[in-house]
Amino acid sequence: MEVNGYHGKTLDMLLKSHVTIGDHICIESTGGKYCGILIPRYEHATPDRIVVKLESGYNTGVSINKIKSIRKVEKPALAHSNKNSSTNRDQSLPSSTDLQLDNTRSPDEKSTNPPPVSLISTGGTISSRVDYRTGGVSSALTASELYESVPELREYSSIDPEVLFTEYSENLTPEHWTIIAKTVHEKILSQKYKGIIISHGTDTMHYTSAALSFALQNLPIPIILVGAQRSSDRPSSDAALNLLGAAVIATKSNIAGVFVVMHNSISDDVISCHLGTRVRKNHTSRRDAFESIDVDPVALVKGENIELSARNSQLSLHSRRNGIEKIVAKPKFDKRVSLIRFYPGFDPRIIDYCVQLGNKIIILEGTGLGHVSRDCIPSLQNAVRNKVLVFITSQCIWGRTSLDVYETGRDLLNVGVIPLRNMLTETATVKAMWALANCKNPREIKQVMQENIANEITTRIPIK
Amino acid sequence: MEVNGYHGKTLDMLLKSHVTIGDHICIESTGGKYCGILIPRYEHATPDRIVVKLESGYNTGVSINKIKSIRKVEKPALAHSNKNSSTNRDQSLPSSTDLQLDNTRSPDEKSTNPPPVSLISTGGTISSRVDYRTGGVSSALTASELYESVPELREYSSIDPEVLFTEYSENLTPEHWTIIAKTVHEKILSQKYKGIIISHGTDTMHYTSAALSFALQNLPIPIILVGAQRSSDRPSSDAALNLLGAAVIATKSNIAGVFVVMHNSISDDVISCHLGTRVRKNHTSRRDAFESIDVDPVALVKGENIELSARNSQLSLHSRRNGIEKIVAKPKFDKRVSLIRFYPGFDPRIIDYCVQLGNKIIILEGTGLGHVSRDCIPSLQNAVRNKVLVFITSQCIWGRTSLDVYETGRDLLNVGVIPLRNMLTETATVKAMWALANCKNPREIKQVMQENIANEITTRIPIK
Repeated sequence: MEVNGYHGKTLDMLLKSHVTIGDHICIESTGGKYCGILIPRYEHATPDRIVVKLESGYNTGVSINKIKSIRKVEKPALAHSNKNSSTNRDQSLPSSTDLQLDNTRSPDEKSTNPPPVSLISTGGTISSRVDYRTGGVSSALTASELYESVPELREYSSIDPEVLFTEYSENLTPEHWTIIAKTVHEKILSQKYKGIIISHGTDTMHYTSAALSFALQNLPIPIILVGAQRSSDRPSSDAALNLLGAAVIATKSNIAGVFVVMHNSISDDVISCHLGTRVRKNHTSRRDAFESIDVDPVALVKGENIELSARNSQLSLHSRRNGIEKIVAKPKFDKRVSLIRFYPGFDPRIIDYCVQLGNKIIILEGTGLGHVSRDCIPSLQNAVRNKVLVFITSQCIWGRTSLDVYETGRDLLNVGVIPLRNMLTETATVKAMWALANCKNPREIKQVMQENIANEITTRIPIK
Repeated sequence: MEVNGYHGKTLDMLLKSHVTIGDHICIESTGGKYCGILIPRYEHATPDRIVVKLESGYNTGVSINKIKSIRKVEKPALAHSNKNSSTNRDQSLPSSTDLQLDNTRSPDEKSTNPPPVSLISTGGTISSRVDYRTGGVSSALTASELYESVPELREYSSIDPEVLFTEYSENLTPEHWTIIAKTVHEKILSQKYKGIIISHGTDTMHYTSAALSFALQNLPIPIILVGAQRSSDRPSSDAALNLLGAAVIATKSNIAGVFVVMHNSISDDVISCHLGTRVRKNHTSRRDAFESIDVDPVALVKGENIELSARNSQLSLHSRRNGIEKIVAKPKFDKRVSLIRFYPGFDPRIIDYCVQLGNKIIILEGTGLGHVSRDCIPSLQNAVRNKVLVFITSQCIWGRTSLDVYETGRDLLNVGVIPLRNMLTETATVKAMWALANCKNPREIKQVMQENIANEITTRIPIK
């Protein structure tokens, strides 16, 4: 017999102590006292351990040989507790002391149930587990398992889990963006959910968040991309707190739009909610890898509290929840877009080749205010002559392009190259693919690229 | 008659007041009192103004119609004052009240003269002036003019100015790096200078600093790249303070190596000295655009004081001044290197094309820990089969690549792709060009690319 990864002596000890997954427990051991939530075990090695998610958000495994007692305790003060509300949840989840589910309530019973939230899993570290034989990480957890690994989610939301893909995000393509956008659109139209959470690999999460920001406009509810820098079954995983932050935004906020929700710092007390078009993965491994660029995060989540950025509110950088009437869905993308990064010694033949390949738009990531060397000019002229639109962004990341200041910039403007102000290179590339698929002609693309649609262009730079 | 841009009534007023360029003066005007250093005028418009560099570092122009009196004052307390020491300076510089130069001392008279420093001008905003007719900025100031525009430099150093190029840095190529490296090498061998300052456009300053870090190793003195985000004749220019910071590092520090010296914050009180291989331009326009990545700045310059980073000292991230015996000069670069940035929807045929062009090294800027989509694998296999070396960096900027964690990474390792740990993409591209020109064979290139030569790979990440 095995329950949620526990079996043999370990399972016996849990059953004898009348505790089960999701319970708040305190373990007295020779190594100290550990209080937190009992969570399932995913590891394939070291079987004789009970895994507790501590209040810090970290998981810890306690060896049963060291355990003196396991005691169920009242959970620490929280706004509301709905341990038995399991509507829309995966039915295999144990959620009460008798390992039985209470599946009798409908999603309409909002007075007693926490608000229904859709959890769409696309893969990534957040839904990964460590393979303890190889030491590597593989994409394996389903949305239900993910939900199950964070029992506190039930405090805030009735999660309706769905697996859309099981891909690391470096393998996601514009075709995947279309599928995600269509799926999200359908779920919004069902009007069943207070918010939609998309678990996603962090590598390209900011590209997908930009894609959804253009594909789905005038959203009535928050669409939240969430990931983890360390896999959900690791002791140091950031998955639980990011998911909880996402659930708080999904259920308790008054904002609508596409957001990325991740750690604000390396400590586990504040979660940031970023605008989908103004966020970037700026660190390979840290939990606070994602940063809002040229704007504040829309909101900070501290426990159950949401602090909206006053500055962003002033700048009208986010929308409020609304009806579904005005929603715009344009989920198509066209990949005939090249992102080219300039550097000293850059060979302009790369530009010619992108034109030859039949691409229709080039995003040229220049230096500083948006410059490239003068020996690129003939290739850029050739591109423009071939009806390829060339837009300029900056590899500086922060700040905005400006081609009016220096001779180089004015030369580029003369060729017909168009600067994209403070649009991030990633966002510009995604927007170009979207504009190419959804505009009638180059003139319209040119216009749409320079218009602000989803905060990808902000008129002021409030902070670095 | 025209003296340093002043002529007519304005010049008369200056002569009558017995003040000249570089003097500390106080102007009483109907608009208020302005005290600071009298500096030359470069503007072609509004001739009837006297330009004073205030103690804040900003320039201000005072209309002569509003001026009630101009008075020469004692300069504010400073460690030493050597107004007449002009050895190695451009002889056109006026530096005393009688507009005569004292050119009689030799560089050896260190007791009375400030230390000799070489100032090599390559162009860029720092040596630019605003063209008030077009509103644009053009590269125009020579090293002497630049020196002249910052009279306080004379407090610290006897500057020997030389114009090498007059180029915006987006037009600098690996061939320019070779010329700069050779010039710097000669100047070091002359043993005439306490330090060498290179004024440079900021757009690619971090590429050049990386290039010099590989081209010139075991340096006996500091080689300092310095630039400005706003041109030297503008009231808000950061040129003066950056140059002063560079002069302080050149003359008063005990460190050797290649550094970038720029503002530490948007206020004008602290200047950062960055390692040449670990610095990046992270903002298009702010004065504190340059940031040290994954390490602290080597030093902070506050006035005349230098605070070395204790953490960097612990990590041995900078060297001390030394003799010229151990200097290594390998100034060649080979441009057959492609930097390719991956993104969702990326067309792997770009990789094939870079191989076709005859390039020998590809720097692939992946997502996250250094990933690309699985559909790149065949093209990467093709590159490796064609004896093209493929190295991986991360577009996250901060943090380090690691291909051991996920399946994608392990697949890339199997193909033969080599991760470059926390080497910056810019630094990796430059190092590849340098390794290609200076190594005997691909095996040696592979080895050199993975070895730390100039702090481009650090073993720990002290700070984000």
